[in-house]
Amino acid sequence: MLAETYKNMLGAKSVIREMFAYGSKRGAEIGYENVFDYSLGNPSVPAPPEFTREMIRLLQEESPVTLHGYSPSLGIDSVREAVADSLRRRFGLPYEKQHIFMASGAAGALAHAFRAVTVPGDTILTFAPCFPEYHPYVELTGAKLKVVPADLEAFQVNLEKTEELLTSDVTAVLINTPNNPSGTVYSTKTLKALAELLNRKQREFGHPIYLISDEPYREIVFAGVDAPYVASCYDNTITCYSFSKSVSLPGERIGYVAVSPRCEGASLIADMCGQISRGIGHNCPPSIIQLAVCAVLDITSDLSVYERNAEILYQELKELGFSVVKPGGTFYMFPKALEADSNAFCRKAMEEDLLLVPGDTFGCPGYFRISYCIDTEKVLRSLEAFRRVAARY
Amino acid sequence: MLAETYKNMLGAKSVIREMFAYGSKRGAEIGYENVFDYSLGNPSVPAPPEFTREMIRLLQEESPVTLHGYSPSLGIDSVREAVADSLRRRFGLPYEKQHIFMASGAAGALAHAFRAVTVPGDTILTFAPCFPEYHPYVELTGAKLKVVPADLEAFQVNLEKTEELLTSDVTAVLINTPNNPSGTVYSTKTLKALAELLNRKQREFGHPIYLISDEPYREIVFAGVDAPYVASCYDNTITCYSFSKSVSLPGERIGYVAVSPRCEGASLIADMCGQISRGIGHNCPPSIIQLAVCAVLDITSDLSVYERNAEILYQELKELGFSVVKPGGTFYMFPKALEADSNAFCRKAMEEDLLLVPGDTFGCPGYFRISYCIDTEKVLRSLEAFRRVAARY
Repeated sequence: MLAETYKNMLGAKSVIREMFAYGSKRGAEIGYENVFDYSLGNPSVPAPPEFTREMIRLLQEESPVTLHGYSPSLGIDSVREAVADSLRRRFGLPYEKQHIFMASGAAGALAHAFRAVTVPGDTILTFAPCFPEYHPYVELTGAKLKVVPADLEAFQVNLEKTEELLTSDVTAVLINTPNNPSGTVYSTKTLKALAELLNRKQREFGHPIYLISDEPYREIVFAGVDAPYVASCYDNTITCYSFSKSVSLPGERIGYVAVSPRCEGASLIADMCGQISRGIGHNCPPSIIQLAVCAVLDITSDLSVYERNAEILYQELKELGFSVVKPGGTFYMFPKALEADSNAFCRKAMEEDLLLVPGDTFGCPGYFRISYCIDTEKVLRSLEAFRRVAARY
Repeated sequence: MLAETYKNMLGAKSVIREMFAYGSKRGAEIGYENVFDYSLGNPSVPAPPEFTREMIRLLQEESPVTLHGYSPSLGIDSVREAVADSLRRRFGLPYEKQHIFMASGAAGALAHAFRAVTVPGDTILTFAPCFPEYHPYVELTGAKLKVVPADLEAFQVNLEKTEELLTSDVTAVLINTPNNPSGTVYSTKTLKALAELLNRKQREFGHPIYLISDEPYREIVFAGVDAPYVASCYDNTITCYSFSKSVSLPGERIGYVAVSPRCEGASLIADMCGQISRGIGHNCPPSIIQLAVCAVLDITSDLSVYERNAEILYQELKELGFSVVKPGGTFYMFPKALEADSNAFCRKAMEEDLLLVPGDTFGCPGYFRISYCIDTEKVLRSLEAFRRVAARY
């Protein structure tokens, strides 16, 4: 019989989908260049030419039988070595090949990390505002997701509420910094305080609490922002990385799990990920993509457009009277809507050809997300639409 | 805490791994060309040049932002259309885009198919000899795998035993034809009889029984062999395909789920696979690989070497007195060992530099698998080693 769990997930209303449909329809009417789509997190800058060149070189020079052959289930050895080496050089932790598991993007990495350190019935704690997909990602493993209410002042961590919700059934804490949707970066102060709390609770509960750090935006940090490497702040950290945003390869589904060498069970967790793959049909990212990302481990796409766009939008929104926390990275910001119901606010914005995502799905009603991974020229043209929306209040 | 299920899976003894280690050590001593490794199922013929050309064309001509952009979660629309079109033309069933879900190889396809039509506690029935990974694939979904004993005469289906084991808790039946490890192809007679039994039991139980057809070897069928398309024989069929073997792309992890248009719930199952992906971190095969396989939907690598090797080995083994069912396709055959303990037999073969896999892991003790996806020249040189093994009995 068809599995009810998945059947019932079909047809769920999605504001983003509704907007996408509206944008397509409206674009056909007034021209796509006149619809200001701030709803999607699809990078707008090209992948580094080094990636393209390496792909072509592999295809032209390597034997197809070897090139397209099976990868070991934890990833190609040389690729795992190269990732460990890059992390070691850049962040100073003694990563080795054995700590790296190659995964299909951050979603693939998280699917393995959750299963490695929690069992059905456990609780994973995360922080609002957060990526809405965390709910199905976690809940379909059989674990529960508990969300700490947002720190609305700075979108850092509400420590008091965290301590309150950090009960002994919590075996993992999931963070995302730089953050989708707020664009803020957890500071050294925030991470140290969180680490102190987790260390204290580990001792109190007598079991490890793993920190699963979802870091697809790690390389998108704006000038002068304090952006510590999470695993340097807390030993039991499992880093989930994706190359989707930093080198603009979202469709190629490539990332990794990096288990901190200081982590409890550090020598086992990557190997366990290989076993988890057998149950979820993962079987490694494609061989050629694994090999080609080695050419871009230490570089990024030209990400300057995101910071430029952030600056322009932040200034304009402040002038229009929006309450907004200045983003420290990513290509998102998360201002407060001009009315309590952010769905109503976003519908009004839509009428001005401005596609914004209400904060409700991120666990933070009353706010909205702007994804400014679009051309600066379009950002500038959109300001008039923001002014029209503001004028309605 | 580390999840015991996966932790306990580590360090399980694997005869294949043991052999791989032996082969590497022995190869270093006497030269790799003198170790006859028949243990691995890694295609030995190159991918069609059409695939390489299309990959390079995409990289040179398409905008990187579009090319490497996110794929919709069911796969790129044009790719799903092209797959449906190819199946419709070649097999005569009215497949449409809505029936196709792009997956990361057959393992990814099976992970979705199992979850779409069974729930934890259900039983999936399959047939010995079978791919040993079916056990973790199924059991880690929470379902149970029940294995029908082999038809040792012909490696078709033991119908009497199947009827006996086909109890009402069975909601899916998993078949693999052409078969790994036997190399046999289920005949029209076999599939019709199986379909008749399943149809009768569906009525008796009052619930559908889905036939999940694992078909990575579908295109590797030898001359004159009766190889019906499974979904043409039984309506409730979900086909899981991989491009790994037919176009020699095992490392690129690309395949699909094709839901028979005649299937109960045909319009829902691919959509449900999109939801299942959210729970298991799947998120589509890479965009560029999806686009490039469209160039090879109707072609294969030059697979003639497999049939040539099969013929040579079959003749030699018969002459040496082995009992062996002639393979109808794949690059495997599954002869009876010369002693009851096929592990002991394979260890003796290893002493003659012949790496063979004991049948125990395939649910068929007393037999052994030969994977003859190696050069014909090497097959010919290996015959002397087979003779030496036979001479020990």
